[in-house]
Amino acid sequence: MTMAKGLTRTARRDLMAAWTAQLQDEITTFFERLDGGHFSEAAWDRQGGGGGRSRLLSDGAVFEKAGVNRALVEGILPPEAAKRLGGNVPPDATPYFFATGVSVVVHPRSPMVPTVHLNVRYFELTDADGQLHDAWYGGGTDLTPMHPFPDDARHFHRSLKWACDAHDPRLYPAHKAWCDEYFRNLHRANEARGIGGVFFDHLRPGEGPFHFAPEALHAYVTTVGRALDDAYGPIVHARRDLPYTERDKALQLYRRGRYVEFNLVHDRGTIFGLQTGARTESVLMSLPPLAAWAPYHEPAQGSIEAELAAMLAPRDWATEA
Amino acid sequence: MTMAKGLTRTARRDLMAAWTAQLQDEITTFFERLDGGHFSEAAWDRQGGGGGRSRLLSDGAVFEKAGVNRALVEGILPPEAAKRLGGNVPPDATPYFFATGVSVVVHPRSPMVPTVHLNVRYFELTDADGQLHDAWYGGGTDLTPMHPFPDDARHFHRSLKWACDAHDPRLYPAHKAWCDEYFRNLHRANEARGIGGVFFDHLRPGEGPFHFAPEALHAYVTTVGRALDDAYGPIVHARRDLPYTERDKALQLYRRGRYVEFNLVHDRGTIFGLQTGARTESVLMSLPPLAAWAPYHEPAQGSIEAELAAMLAPRDWATEA
Repeated sequence: MTMAKGLTRTARRDLMAAWTAQLQDEITTFFERLDGGHFSEAAWDRQGGGGGRSRLLSDGAVFEKAGVNRALVEGILPPEAAKRLGGNVPPDATPYFFATGVSVVVHPRSPMVPTVHLNVRYFELTDADGQLHDAWYGGGTDLTPMHPFPDDARHFHRSLKWACDAHDPRLYPAHKAWCDEYFRNLHRANEARGIGGVFFDHLRPGEGPFHFAPEALHAYVTTVGRALDDAYGPIVHARRDLPYTERDKALQLYRRGRYVEFNLVHDRGTIFGLQTGARTESVLMSLPPLAAWAPYHEPAQGSIEAELAAMLAPRDWATEA
Repeated sequence: MTMAKGLTRTARRDLMAAWTAQLQDEITTFFERLDGGHFSEAAWDRQGGGGGRSRLLSDGAVFEKAGVNRALVEGILPPEAAKRLGGNVPPDATPYFFATGVSVVVHPRSPMVPTVHLNVRYFELTDADGQLHDAWYGGGTDLTPMHPFPDDARHFHRSLKWACDAHDPRLYPAHKAWCDEYFRNLHRANEARGIGGVFFDHLRPGEGPFHFAPEALHAYVTTVGRALDDAYGPIVHARRDLPYTERDKALQLYRRGRYVEFNLVHDRGTIFGLQTGARTESVLMSLPPLAAWAPYHEPAQGSIEAELAAMLAPRDWATEA
């Protein structure tokens, strides 16, 4: 492990480092069991402080590409990253940041199995003396189907609602709506990347509307970090052995093109990673192994293409019949 | 043609509109002759003024995807576009813009045939009364090989040098260097997108170092607009019928992934188009029909992967032996 090098150690940061290490291990195990294959690991150092441990499963039985990455970075916050970050940057001082998180993106081989993304992260903003100015959690998970199975969207959202409700019944509706708002290709008439899930940022203990105790906030984000076992696992089992056609595959490659567009043009995490000098191969592990940009044809009514596009309009998947 | 709608017509703008229409037709004819196939055309209107005429050749004998687009747009310049545009935006007034140009990107089927990009454009900035505050030309053309053929890079650059030298022998070196600087993936250790060509922006009559007369500047940009016949045509003829392997194809798909990254993360024209409400399908015609993001392996010395990567370091292709 390369992460301790050059870090400002505090008990709180040690705790957060242990938290993301634990989550990365759990998620790695989950996907290895689903696939039967194994992740390879690459450790990297960040010039300026910290580094990461990226795990990649390639050409697996189920997953054409799966990435389970952990980063723990700190140092001076570049001004252009500070502008986008949205926290309380210390006034009249060079802002320093600490961030640790786990990012997961898996691209299944079969177009019948949806792509899933999960991220949990913890941020701190300090001044040069290590004085804490702001700290918050962010995270979420969302599903991107490549084939129109409304049942999968229902299962994913119901599972997330169940998990979130145990913490506070207001969490799922608020963070489901936030997810629907965030994962959109503004330049594609605001089309959603997938069928959503939950998303949140800048969650701080004691703040409205949830007024989390510090431990309760940490527990909620941990629940989201562990959500895939129940929310995604059963979908993979149900869809992995279905036969599919070339047309199904073409639709997957087309939707993956939109996935690339969102991640490179709009995604805050991707842009933050590239701006702050994280390892590019790790930041861009979210890109699919293969993607297509075919000439656009309006899909015929009732076609799989039209049905999948229709599923992208946000709706109340968790509670509909 | 949908372009006259809502435009502020001046003799100068009519001239520029005719210029881009003529260039689009010439370039379309050039690629139809190379391929044997035909372009289909889609006209679009821009909310706020102007529109475009996009021509696409799909699944041709030589070109898997070729786009020859013309746009002629005008209206209020969005503030975020104004910031990036770099011209003299009228102070204390809402900036209006007029822009017309031709953009060409072709993605050959065979990995032995390089991808080429060309763009010429004319911009005006005015205030609401049509008072002209700034006007300039931009443009260029650059080659992205998918297989290591140094001879193709030499031919492309010699041809451009020859064409530019007829106008002013200082043009090619200046605009070759500008191209080398511009088409780089900063987030990929500054790797170049291809082997370059020429690139320029904000060229105004009477300005240093070239002090173009207005007609001479227009003639230079027109020469660049017509450069592909000699610079690219012979390369296609030499490479189109070469056999290739799956490994050659994989290298092409990998390099196309980098092409996508440059266009979505860094390219000014793409970002300007998406920011100013141009038709997304037309702006993103530059994206390849298929692209791959494979796990990274350091290429073995002497391999085609290593040789192609080595070709991306800028060098003096036009004059080397």
